[in-house]
Parts: sequence; C-alpha cells; structure tokens
Amino acid sequence: MNTHQRIAPPVIDPHKLDRLAEVAVKVGLALQPGQDLFLTAPVTALPLVRRIAEHAYKAGAGLVTPLLSDEQVTLARFRNGADAGFDRAPTWLYDGVAKAFSANTARLAIVGDNPMLLSGEDPAKVARANKANSMAYQPALEKIAGFDINWSIVAYPGPSWAQLVFPDETEDAAVTKLADAIFAASRVDLADPVAAWDAHNGVLQARTAWLNGHRFHALHFRGPGTDLTVGLADGHEWQGGASMAKNGIICNANIPTEEVFTTPHALRVDGYVSSTKPLSYQGTLIDRISVRFEAGRIVEAKAAQGEAVLNKVLDTDAGARRLGEVALVPHSSPIYRARPVLFQVLPGRGQPLAGSDRGAGRQQEPDPYRLDDRLGRGGYRRRPCRRPPRARLPQGRVGVSFTPCG
Amino acid sequence: MNTHQRIAPPVIDPHKLDRLAEVAVKVGLALQPGQDLFLTAPVTALPLVRRIAEHAYKAGAGLVTPLLSDEQVTLARFRNGADAGFDRAPTWLYDGVAKAFSANTARLAIVGDNPMLLSGEDPAKVARANKANSMAYQPALEKIAGFDINWSIVAYPGPSWAQLVFPDETEDAAVTKLADAIFAASRVDLADPVAAWDAHNGVLQARTAWLNGHRFHALHFRGPGTDLTVGLADGHEWQGGASMAKNGIICNANIPTEEVFTTPHALRVDGYVSSTKPLSYQGTLIDRISVRFEAGRIVEAKAAQGEAVLNKVLDTDAGARRLGEVALVPHSSPIYRARPVLFQVLPGRGQPLAGSDRGAGRQQEPDPYRLDDRLGRGGYRRRPCRRPPRARLPQGRVGVSFTPCG
Repeated sequence: MNTHQRIAPPVIDPHKLDRLAEVAVKVGLALQPGQDLFLTAPVTALPLVRRIAEHAYKAGAGLVTPLLSDEQVTLARFRNGADAGFDRAPTWLYDGVAKAFSANTARLAIVGDNPMLLSGEDPAKVARANKANSMAYQPALEKIAGFDINWSIVAYPGPSWAQLVFPDETEDAAVTKLADAIFAASRVDLADPVAAWDAHNGVLQARTAWLNGHRFHALHFRGPGTDLTVGLADGHEWQGGASMAKNGIICNANIPTEEVFTTPHALRVDGYVSSTKPLSYQGTLIDRISVRFEAGRIVEAKAAQGEAVLNKVLDTDAGARRLGEVALVPHSSPIYRARPVLFQVLPGRGQPLAGSDRGAGRQQEPDPYRLDDRLGRGGYRRRPCRRPPRARLPQGRVGVSFTPCG
Repeated sequence: MNTHQRIAPPVIDPHKLDRLAEVAVKVGLALQPGQDLFLTAPVTALPLVRRIAEHAYKAGAGLVTPLLSDEQVTLARFRNGADAGFDRAPTWLYDGVAKAFSANTARLAIVGDNPMLLSGEDPAKVARANKANSMAYQPALEKIAGFDINWSIVAYPGPSWAQLVFPDETEDAAVTKLADAIFAASRVDLADPVAAWDAHNGVLQARTAWLNGHRFHALHFRGPGTDLTVGLADGHEWQGGASMAKNGIICNANIPTEEVFTTPHALRVDGYVSSTKPLSYQGTLIDRISVRFEAGRIVEAKAAQGEAVLNKVLDTDAGARRLGEVALVPHSSPIYRARPVLFQVLPGRGQPLAGSDRGAGRQQEPDPYRLDDRLGRGGYRRRPCRRPPRARLPQGRVGVSFTPCG
C-alpha cells in the first residue's frame, strides 16, 4: 500500500463511492461535454475527488480544477495567526472563481469535514474571518445564488466528522457507518442509482406540482411543543429536486435531496415550534430549540444547549428573526432517518432555524467550499393566489395541514 | 492513528520536516509580517504544507492559501479526457495568481511528485496541455521571472518520486532515503539550520564577489568526454544564494542551492561536453548525453538513452540550441553528491542542457507548481569587461579554468 492509497480509508465501499461520483457528475451536475468543472473538497475527500475527476472527464469535461482544503491548515491560522490577518480573504482567488462561473464552469462542492472544527477557537476571530470571506466571495456567490450555472453539493464521510457523529466507535467503524448513511441517502446503494434519481425527481416534481396546484395560503404544523402557522408568500412557488440553471442545464443542486420548499410570508408566521434535531452552528451545538413567532418574527428563543449563541445569531441583522424558507420532508426518507446523528446540515435538508438577509447565518467556516452550501436554489416566479381545496398530508411526528388561500 | 495522520508517512523525521518548513519560511521566503502566501504542492506533501502554514502564521503571515495538486487527478485527465480539452488551462486561476503577486503575495512551490508521471501518456496531448498552461500562466510567470516578489522552491520526498529513485527499496525505506537526501541538501540536519544558511549565503556571496571581481572572459571545462569553452556574456554578473526581490525582501529562491551562475555568451561556446547525470524531461529519461558546440550552437547531440527526445527538445525554437545559463557547483556540496540518484531537477541545481527562448523546455508537467520551478532568478546588470588576472579553481572530476578578458 502506498501513501496515496493510505489516504483512502479501506473501510469505504469503493464500488458505492464510485457510484456516488457518477451520480454527482451525471445527476448532481449533469456536466456537459466541453464544460469545465471547479470542485472544492476537504483533502480527506480525495478518494471521491479522484473518482469524480474520472467520471467528469469520461463525460467530456474540458478541465477539472480541484481546490482542496485542510482542517489542520485552517486551525494553524486560528492558533498562530497575527490578529490583523483575520480580516483578510483570498479575493484574487474568489474573483477568479466568479470569472470561471461567468465562463460557464460548473461547480461542485464536497462537504465532509468536522462541523465543530472551530468550536475551540476565538469566536471573534472566526466571525471576522467569516465576514471577510463572505464579502470577498460575494461576486461568485451571486452567480451560484442566481443559478447562473449548474452546480451541486455532495457529502463525503470525512474521519473527523464521522468520529463526531459516532464517538463510541473506532475511526474505521465510524467512517463506515457515516459512509453507509450517505450512500443510502444519496441512493447509490440501489441497483441503478441514476435511474433511481430520475424516479425520485419525478416524485418530487409531482409533489411540487400538487402543492403549486393548490396554492395554499398557509401551513399549520402541530406536534409535541409545536403549534405553528406559517403563512406562504403571495405568489410562492414550491420547488424540489432537479432544477434548470440559467445556462439551460437541468441539475440537482443537492445530493441527497428529499425536500420540497417554498417561501414563507414575511409577516404571517405565528405560534411556537420545537426542534427535533440538533443544529451545529459555526462549531457550537445548539440543541432542543424552542422559539415563538409573532407576526413573522421570532420574539422568544430558548435552547437547552447553546442558547446564547442562538440568540446572537438571531441578532445578526434585521432579517435574522424571520423565516427564509419552509420545507417539507417525509419521515420515511432515508435522509430524514439518518439526520438525527449527522450533526452536519447535509446537502438538501435543513435550513438553520432562522435565515438572514445577508446570509451571515448560513456559513459555518471561512472556507470557500462552505460558502455556497445552502444557498441559491433560484428565485420563484410570482403567481396570483387562487382558492384551492383544503387538503391535509400525514407527516408523522409533526403533522402539517394546509390552509387554502383566504 | 486517524486518516489525517496516515497521510504523513511515519518514516519521515518530523523534527527535520519541521525545520525544513522553518527554513522555507525564514530563509527561502523571508516572509514578512502581514504578507500573504500562495503555496502550491502535491497533496502528498501535506505534512510539509501544514508545518509551513504554522511557521508562516507564526512569522506574521496575513493569509496562507495552499493549492494542492494530485497525480491521480492529473492522470485521470490524460487517460479519459476528450481530445478538445487538452488545449484548455485554468486561466481564471492563473490570472488570479498574477493579481495576488501584484498585491505582494509571496510564492512558495513544493516539488515532490513523480517526474516520470506522464511518461506513459500521449506525448502530443502532454505537449498541448503544457503549451496551453504555459500561455495561461505567462502573466503570473513574468512576475516570478522578474522577481517582483519574494519566492522560493523546496523539495518534499513524495512516495512516487522516492520509489522511482530507489526502486529496490520498500516505499517506506525509499521515502526515508529521499527525505534524508533532501534534509542534508537543505541543511536542516545541522544544529541551527537558519544560521547555517546565513553562513552558506555568505560563502556563495564571497564566490560571486570573487568571480565578478575577475570579470572572466570564458570558462574552460575539461574532463572525460568534455573539452568545452564557454564564453561569458559581456557585462555578465555571477549570482548565487540569497537575492533581493523588487519588493525589497532578500530571499533564497531555491532551497537547497549550491550553485553560482551567470550568463554565457550567445556566440562564444565551442567544444564538446558529456553529461555525468541523467536528465528527466517530461517523463522521459535522457542519459549519457554528449553534445558538440560551434559558435554558441549545439551542432551535434547524442545520448545513450532518450536521444530522439533530446533532439526534439533542441528543435523547440531558435534559442533551444544555445546555453541559457552556466553554473558552478563544488563536488563537495551535499546536493551534488545526492543528485546522481534524484532523477528530478532539484531546486537550485541543474538547468536542462539547453535552454529555450520561450521557456518551453523548462517545464515538465501541466501543473501550476511546475511552471516557475526553474525560472526567474533575476536579470543581470551590465558592466564593462576589464582584464582580471588569470585564475583556476579545482573542480573535481570535471575541471574548470577561467579565461580572463581578452
């Protein structure tokens, strides 16, 4: 075994890893012949990066350019860097990335590092580095958020993330378990993953068509600790699964993805809601969250763990106390079942409880591959609100009912 | 041991590796407080990248941005890429790098991959990819060649290079041997490497001062298969060791470096010369080279191995048959003693036999960290040729004598 091979943990099924790469290229990106690909990944995801490069070139890619990040290099900065350096960002690199997007380069982000990496570092420095990075990355991010090009996010079972999720396991066992969860959620354990994604996209499309057909006025969530009415924006549109980027390519921005989502009304959110999953925010675990809404704003927020950080997030800017998105995921989906242990917001599921106008609450670390993880699923077209029939879908533990237009 | 640690072969002395990183930052770059650093490396050199990041931040670096390349991703391109893709290059990235250099970002290149990586791939595709890359990298390269900023190159014992050099050893033993050779040549096995480099730079400075003081007209090399007179350019200047970049920072562009070098006369090179070391050129091994010069040009070239490739190189352009540089290295230097087995042109030693006006002969692979490996040691100031005393230095196997101005 040479050093290269050592980088690839032998505990990850190579066949499923190869299928994940194929799904990322063919379903996630729908990479086109002659199209270049810019790819970001933690260096521990190198085995997946290599498989993706091969599938991309086999699909006719022009040039694949990976940018690998390393947790230890990131930590070296926060532990040794001079104070003045924390307001710096690689503007020259991000400007280049924006230029690549303008030239129709596709974008893939592999997530898989430790979501708690910076939990022991100076929060003020982390916040400054995040802010500098956000500002520098803005021109590139706008092209992602505007869906100018086909882009996608996939997950890789990095060892530090796996050990956080499965602290009682050996590293090898933890990586295997996390890999299996990712493979199942990404449908690469099925016989024909690309066909399975076609079928899955069909299901999501049927759901959004049904929801859009009914043009509901509001959603009503009920469950233990939850009684919340979420008004839907006038002319909202439900989306989910594959979407067409402005360059005409139909891609799946998130692998996996199970949700259908739409835009809440800014003023018509009332009631209380309790979280059923923990949230990792910039290295802090926030758990058992309970918040109360009045007229669209969170007016009270509690958490059994991380309450101070939660309230700091909610004070980020004027929009931070309002919902940015509302999404529905069946309890039966593989990603829903895996998520209690994942700690990390997997692609395709789970906005933070509160969004932010500036997106400040959406980043976890000052690394470029983090920056557009959960942004940019396109705008929505305005439609007139009509009166649909009242309907109700069973949703398991937390039920949701649909209120027609008033 | 986690997967991160697995990337670092335990067979490399961590203390010497840390000293190599310190020498790269303090001697190679002389990185200044507040200065950013752009760093390229093969991913297998990650252990050194991490140590360098830490030393750079401790030295007050603003932001360290590494760009890691991977041999398998490179091979994936040549083995699977569509034909049209081989004229592409990441212009957006290289333009960004040029912008970073303009903003006084320091540059470090770590070399350590397999110099024969592409030897089994289609030479036409390799040549096209090299050409596209050269053209795209030109704006950044000009800033390196013009020594606008402090930059340096260090070596790392990558496993594929080590196994090429020591094919009869296990990988671990090969890496250890190559590491020891690099550590010795880079003076990090001495008690105080930074002080040792100060002393070494003093020696090289004394040699260049002596040579410049004598303003020799020509060098005369004699040895087995060698009787070559190399005229020196009018106003030539000997250089070696530390130099001052245009940003005022005195750095060592090559770690290790033993040579003193100057500019030959374009027309006054006559006689024959035989190589005593093999040369690896774009994956082809060229060995036991023998060439004959007339009036500055190579008029006959033979090699026991790789003769066809050698002659192709010599036909690259109008300048390819003339010498671009002449350098002197004592036989006693650690780098000279190591080089017979190294296969790779280590930083600081060994131009290809023939240079090229366009630099086409100076690259080995289409990776950005290769592009400025052996270029850019600054221009020389013109000085009037005076008559120095005749002198002679013993040079071991191949002797060299110095001819005063005529």
